[in-house]
Amino acid sequence: MTAETSTTTQETRPNRGGLEGVVAATTALSKVEGTAGRLIYSGYNIHDLARTTTFEEIAYLLWFGRLPNKTELVDLKVRLLAERSLPTAVLQMLRDLPATAEPMDALRTAVSAWGAAMIKGQPTIDQAIAVTAHFPVFLAAFHRLRNGLEPLESHPELGYAANYLYLLTGQVPRDEHVKALDAYLVLLADHGMNASTFTARVVASTDSDIVSSVVAAIGALKGPLHGGAPSKVRDMLQAIGTQEQAEGWLRNALGHRDRLMGFGHRVYKTEDPRAEELRELARLADPQEFALARRVEELALALLEEQKPGRRLYTNVEYYSAVLLASVGLPGDLFTPTFAASRVIGWTAHILEQVGNNRLIRPESEYVGPTNLQFVPIDQRR
Amino acid sequence: MTAETSTTTQETRPNRGGLEGVVAATTALSKVEGTAGRLIYSGYNIHDLARTTTFEEIAYLLWFGRLPNKTELVDLKVRLLAERSLPTAVLQMLRDLPATAEPMDALRTAVSAWGAAMIKGQPTIDQAIAVTAHFPVFLAAFHRLRNGLEPLESHPELGYAANYLYLLTGQVPRDEHVKALDAYLVLLADHGMNASTFTARVVASTDSDIVSSVVAAIGALKGPLHGGAPSKVRDMLQAIGTQEQAEGWLRNALGHRDRLMGFGHRVYKTEDPRAEELRELARLADPQEFALARRVEELALALLEEQKPGRRLYTNVEYYSAVLLASVGLPGDLFTPTFAASRVIGWTAHILEQVGNNRLIRPESEYVGPTNLQFVPIDQRR
Repeated sequence: MTAETSTTTQETRPNRGGLEGVVAATTALSKVEGTAGRLIYSGYNIHDLARTTTFEEIAYLLWFGRLPNKTELVDLKVRLLAERSLPTAVLQMLRDLPATAEPMDALRTAVSAWGAAMIKGQPTIDQAIAVTAHFPVFLAAFHRLRNGLEPLESHPELGYAANYLYLLTGQVPRDEHVKALDAYLVLLADHGMNASTFTARVVASTDSDIVSSVVAAIGALKGPLHGGAPSKVRDMLQAIGTQEQAEGWLRNALGHRDRLMGFGHRVYKTEDPRAEELRELARLADPQEFALARRVEELALALLEEQKPGRRLYTNVEYYSAVLLASVGLPGDLFTPTFAASRVIGWTAHILEQVGNNRLIRPESEYVGPTNLQFVPIDQRR
Repeated sequence: MTAETSTTTQETRPNRGGLEGVVAATTALSKVEGTAGRLIYSGYNIHDLARTTTFEEIAYLLWFGRLPNKTELVDLKVRLLAERSLPTAVLQMLRDLPATAEPMDALRTAVSAWGAAMIKGQPTIDQAIAVTAHFPVFLAAFHRLRNGLEPLESHPELGYAANYLYLLTGQVPRDEHVKALDAYLVLLADHGMNASTFTARVVASTDSDIVSSVVAAIGALKGPLHGGAPSKVRDMLQAIGTQEQAEGWLRNALGHRDRLMGFGHRVYKTEDPRAEELRELARLADPQEFALARRVEELALALLEEQKPGRRLYTNVEYYSAVLLASVGLPGDLFTPTFAASRVIGWTAHILEQVGNNRLIRPESEYVGPTNLQFVPIDQRR
């Protein structure tokens, strides 16, 4: 979600173009309280929603502004089920991609191709439902194709989280895995004016279409300083290997000024409430993997406090996201695309909110280049 | 480029989320002086560059920070020529799009598919050259396919502007058309922190790749409040039809509170210097079409001043862009994609500038939704 170095507060470093502290939009979707360590979705504390709601309930909350009753939830699920198609042209495009293509690039292209054929006009909730439902379908199809397997049809009895795992593996997933993934999808669904959501709103503010906005947001989420780094947490834990090697590995890394992955956040100056939930979910999902992750976390926090006192580096959302997603069987390069399959409901809700009360987002730049250069025609240039 | 209503200054209207007056980046690429009506590219006044330089020279200026000498220009042209391929997979994807797809959506998808297969790692000038060179190729291929024609191979002796027209029509274009289009491509290449360039920089600031940034920018440029409206100027001129009908048509439109297309800009409080250049280019390119456009412009400016005094609505860049692009033979729905084929050098130069001195662009939002709602499990919701 962020770089460790992003945690320095505005007071100690002048604005270097990051728009820190600049309010770019008003929203009724989520509230991030960085100092209190609190995250609110449309009035509800994330701790009340995690593990008690499903992805579809949170999609309803963000799109319609309130939690659904049973009938409304069933209705939304039916509408999502109806939009799980894999059009022939998109399938062909995914087949034609090299197996080495990055899944985020495959997703970006598939959503773009689908939208070019299917979506016209101003953003609507129907379009938000349709684009969201296609994310797991496109991702799983690409993942199977790159492994030499044919894509599968969606399972008519499985919801968003379970069907995603089914489409990847061909197996009806275990209940613990579905619950863990569903909770993950709930926790990552929205987070204030993060870079990909902001990107989606900037594009929407030009009166462009919902797919152009979502495609842009996918590109932003891909960046390692935003959503593109959780697999590096897994890489770090794999490199450490055992609890016994943890302290030596971490001290060595810090001695070489390497960045420890999964700590620090631009906004949170205390523990990220999502990290707290994800830690418990990871503990339940795979106790053995959790034990190593927990030991590394404790050591890393102690060493960071020892070596970078006052920097207030806490465990961020990426750390246990990586542990949890690995425990439900996802390969590292699907971590960020799975993040996208959650955040797409936040993106689309923000797009709808932006167009509902729009103003073109068009900041200024400060020119620092040369002025008044004398133009010389090319024939006379040396 | 903008909506007429965007011209109200910050003093008279509080910030409603448009980031007016907020400096989002420093740049050595272009300077927009809204009050003086001046546009500078890396130190050179746009009036010195228009009609004396080519698209390739301006690409060199923006990418390398100075104008090229003859050898350097030839070298860049050779590098651009080498990147005009139409990969089989991209061609197939364009074939599979419906003929009714919007060209901007086709471009967005083609660039995304090409990048997914071809581009890895941090943004480089080589990548900027490669992505730029493909824009006319992808656009012309889609345009021919939707008209039932096969795409053509690039013409080895034609530069960027001429080859684009050749790829569309199969004819080596007339010299006046090439000169007019080249001047257009020079004039539209960069323009401060406009919405698509800002989008590209936000995506680049996450450390994402150049194609993700460019694809995002295409989506932003598509919006009618940014680059998506010039064909509406042509529609308006076609609806007016003759000089004699102009005043009645315009008075009727204003009486119905319809927006007149091609007037007003968020930044310029005087005539847009590009409009001035484009007016002269349009005059040369097609005197007959120009006569109507000029008469409509004069009447519109007089009527706007009469009916909206003090709003300082001037002819913007879209107005004569539409006249010029129509005069070189482009259909209306290729106006915005052609704008993209110019602005891509600005986008890529800004991306390279952003990653050269990066900080994640991550503003804040103000939460205006409910707080402290009591969570009720779904079984108990009514």
